[in-house]
Amino acid sequence: MDWEKVHQDIRSRRDADLATWVDLVSQPSVSAQDLGVRECAEVLARMMEKMGIRARIMETGGQPVVFGQVDSERPEAPTVLFYGHYDVQPPEPLEKWISPPFEPQVREGRLYGRGTGDNKGQLLAHVLAVRSYLESLGQVPVNVKFLFEGEEESGSPNLASFAQEHQDLLKTDLVYTSDGPMHENGDPVIFFGVRGLLSVDIVVETATSDNHSGNKGGVIPNAAWELVEILQSLRDDAGRPAFGGFWEGVRPPTQTELELVGALPFDPQETARVFGVDKMALTGEEFYRRLLLEPTLSINGLVSGYTGEGTKTIIPGQARAKLDMRLVPDQDPHLIAEGLQEHVARVNPRAQVIHGKHTWPSRTDPQVPVARKVVRAVEKERGRKALILPSLGGSMPDYVFTRILGAPSLGIPYANADEANHAPNENMDLELFFSGIHVSARVLEELSGDL
Amino acid sequence: MDWEKVHQDIRSRRDADLATWVDLVSQPSVSAQDLGVRECAEVLARMMEKMGIRARIMETGGQPVVFGQVDSERPEAPTVLFYGHYDVQPPEPLEKWISPPFEPQVREGRLYGRGTGDNKGQLLAHVLAVRSYLESLGQVPVNVKFLFEGEEESGSPNLASFAQEHQDLLKTDLVYTSDGPMHENGDPVIFFGVRGLLSVDIVVETATSDNHSGNKGGVIPNAAWELVEILQSLRDDAGRPAFGGFWEGVRPPTQTELELVGALPFDPQETARVFGVDKMALTGEEFYRRLLLEPTLSINGLVSGYTGEGTKTIIPGQARAKLDMRLVPDQDPHLIAEGLQEHVARVNPRAQVIHGKHTWPSRTDPQVPVARKVVRAVEKERGRKALILPSLGGSMPDYVFTRILGAPSLGIPYANADEANHAPNENMDLELFFSGIHVSARVLEELSGDL
Repeated sequence: MDWEKVHQDIRSRRDADLATWVDLVSQPSVSAQDLGVRECAEVLARMMEKMGIRARIMETGGQPVVFGQVDSERPEAPTVLFYGHYDVQPPEPLEKWISPPFEPQVREGRLYGRGTGDNKGQLLAHVLAVRSYLESLGQVPVNVKFLFEGEEESGSPNLASFAQEHQDLLKTDLVYTSDGPMHENGDPVIFFGVRGLLSVDIVVETATSDNHSGNKGGVIPNAAWELVEILQSLRDDAGRPAFGGFWEGVRPPTQTELELVGALPFDPQETARVFGVDKMALTGEEFYRRLLLEPTLSINGLVSGYTGEGTKTIIPGQARAKLDMRLVPDQDPHLIAEGLQEHVARVNPRAQVIHGKHTWPSRTDPQVPVARKVVRAVEKERGRKALILPSLGGSMPDYVFTRILGAPSLGIPYANADEANHAPNENMDLELFFSGIHVSARVLEELSGDL
Repeated sequence: MDWEKVHQDIRSRRDADLATWVDLVSQPSVSAQDLGVRECAEVLARMMEKMGIRARIMETGGQPVVFGQVDSERPEAPTVLFYGHYDVQPPEPLEKWISPPFEPQVREGRLYGRGTGDNKGQLLAHVLAVRSYLESLGQVPVNVKFLFEGEEESGSPNLASFAQEHQDLLKTDLVYTSDGPMHENGDPVIFFGVRGLLSVDIVVETATSDNHSGNKGGVIPNAAWELVEILQSLRDDAGRPAFGGFWEGVRPPTQTELELVGALPFDPQETARVFGVDKMALTGEEFYRRLLLEPTLSINGLVSGYTGEGTKTIIPGQARAKLDMRLVPDQDPHLIAEGLQEHVARVNPRAQVIHGKHTWPSRTDPQVPVARKVVRAVEKERGRKALILPSLGGSMPDYVFTRILGAPSLGIPYANADEANHAPNENMDLELFFSGIHVSARVLEELSGDL
């Protein structure tokens, strides 16, 4: 195929593509507020149809999915599924926006508006790359599927069941996701997994209300003390999680993974400044190993009794800790929740463990051929080496692809590091938007070669 | 002396004495809001002057003291100092009052109004007893002093320094305080001490703001975990305070004190109900020993990170615990604060200990002759045995009398158990007000006999 024609086509359509991007951002789609989401799905599906992509709106238990498909003419061609989300974060506080969130504006080489980078600009890059294949060559070199959901900013509550129900439709050799930012030095980033998440509250109620610490102190149980004891019992002397089941299934990092994190750029002074701490005692290898490859048990919040100014001499009747755990392969959030429940019941029978959200950890082997092709394509198109992260520290529903669809899943962010996603004045660099289209096109080219 | 004449005089003045009480309650005196306090001191001093008591308003660093004095004609007579407070709690929430807080109203045998029982009705009983001695016999059988402060509801910030400066003026053989309620079964209560108090905050700051538990989890310190560790280190495995200096000077309870608490009425079911707990596992002797004779270390409040609904996946940069300690003789709040400071600095150098209020514990030996006389007088006048508490569980500035003035100090509440002090519809039973005058008169009679 004459790959250069595709890139010429992309270069020739900058104004029209910017206008399409502006149209998509102009349609509000705030899933947390159920504002315009279905309308946005319709806008997006129509755009795709106009470009020659078979697109349809599919129902879930919540907001709809936009599913798109273009088949390659080569029957043996592999399939890539582009995942993205067309819903956006709430735009509030509105008064902090320089231009209104749903009236996108170009300023100094960036498009400003809610959802420009997270995730409309990035998912559109994939769509436009396919469009340019169809316009310039009349075909795509591999089978392409698009799965754009409308609830990512609300925690993707229906994505797993949707994937379960439509396994055949979604069958693929690779899931490709562009979300989040590139490195702040402009290096491309490719990540091969995420940590899982399990959120729980631990609640102790020792009395129906607070009591007076003088009139009752010494003879009535103190919910805050009981909570402290429970929390302390969850860790060993070194501060590592130490309740039954937590470490079950944890795969130690591979040599490759350790080499990858050891090679990541690390500036301890700058990291300490960004984190707001005095100093960073860890080496880069320790830092990334703990952040990307090891599980955590974090207290997110504590509340009990009187928390205002001055003193109030009470014995709290209730105390609550909010915790989250970041999980690594092959920890199972269900088994850990059970282990925690049993542990807490043993330490303090009146304490309650309340389960919140959970997602599974997910990891794709950077050595699989399809992954190596993506890395090669990205580095070729960007003209610089990519930072290879064996995992992110955060959590996304990546397990839906690796566990349910059984496909390798890679993350390749296209946005600028200062995209201000989830914040006022969200933006995406115009050149990164356009270069993203070229990257997606190059990936399709590379995937069409022998595996 | 013809003691019966005094009681006849008291009985003959019920209407006028109720009117005086109403006048005193009608004058607002909210120390927390600096509302009418000095005016109330003037009203009270004028009332006392009219009854033939030398009264004067004395300045402190805050609200004034009303000091009164009547000398006995017998030079060898002992001295009793009546302590009370003419300031009151804020009346809010006003909408919960059936009649306005500063327009006292008699309903069903009680006077309703802010300060009726806490403490205007009770301090007035002492004044009116002295008045009836002067009216009926023209003299008092012992030297009488009155110390009525205007800042008790604000924590008596100037009482200790006032006593220090005026030790000669306040010299006495006994301090007699009527505040709080009698037992709910109507038994008179006499208490011989209070626990001390030391309030502290422990604060840990690990970062200038909260951080993301996915993007930073595992590599940044967690303020909430560090606070939990500090708190846990303050107690031993049995849950008893275990930092240097806490137990220093603690006097074990005497045989007499243990017998006294063993004799106090105790209904485990009812106590559990009032405390809002499932059941009370302690015996009465254990219950009162812990509540009245042993020190405590209570968490009053905990706050860190996210405390709202749902989840927020953060690593808190700050965590705070608010604690109070109830102290027993001869614990010294200064030494304990120092011990705590050193302990916390050792466990976690970045944690801060912030000291709040403190008062010393105080206890008077129930065996001293002057105490036995008071018990006898109260039981004789009330016609029933008194409940003898070697200490209260709560804290009051009793140490000012026992430590600074070096005098025995006794508490003899006159109000009904449901007086609703500090709450809307505060009230005091009319018969308890009048019988209180008789009790105070009987105490003066009894004190005039041989010690």
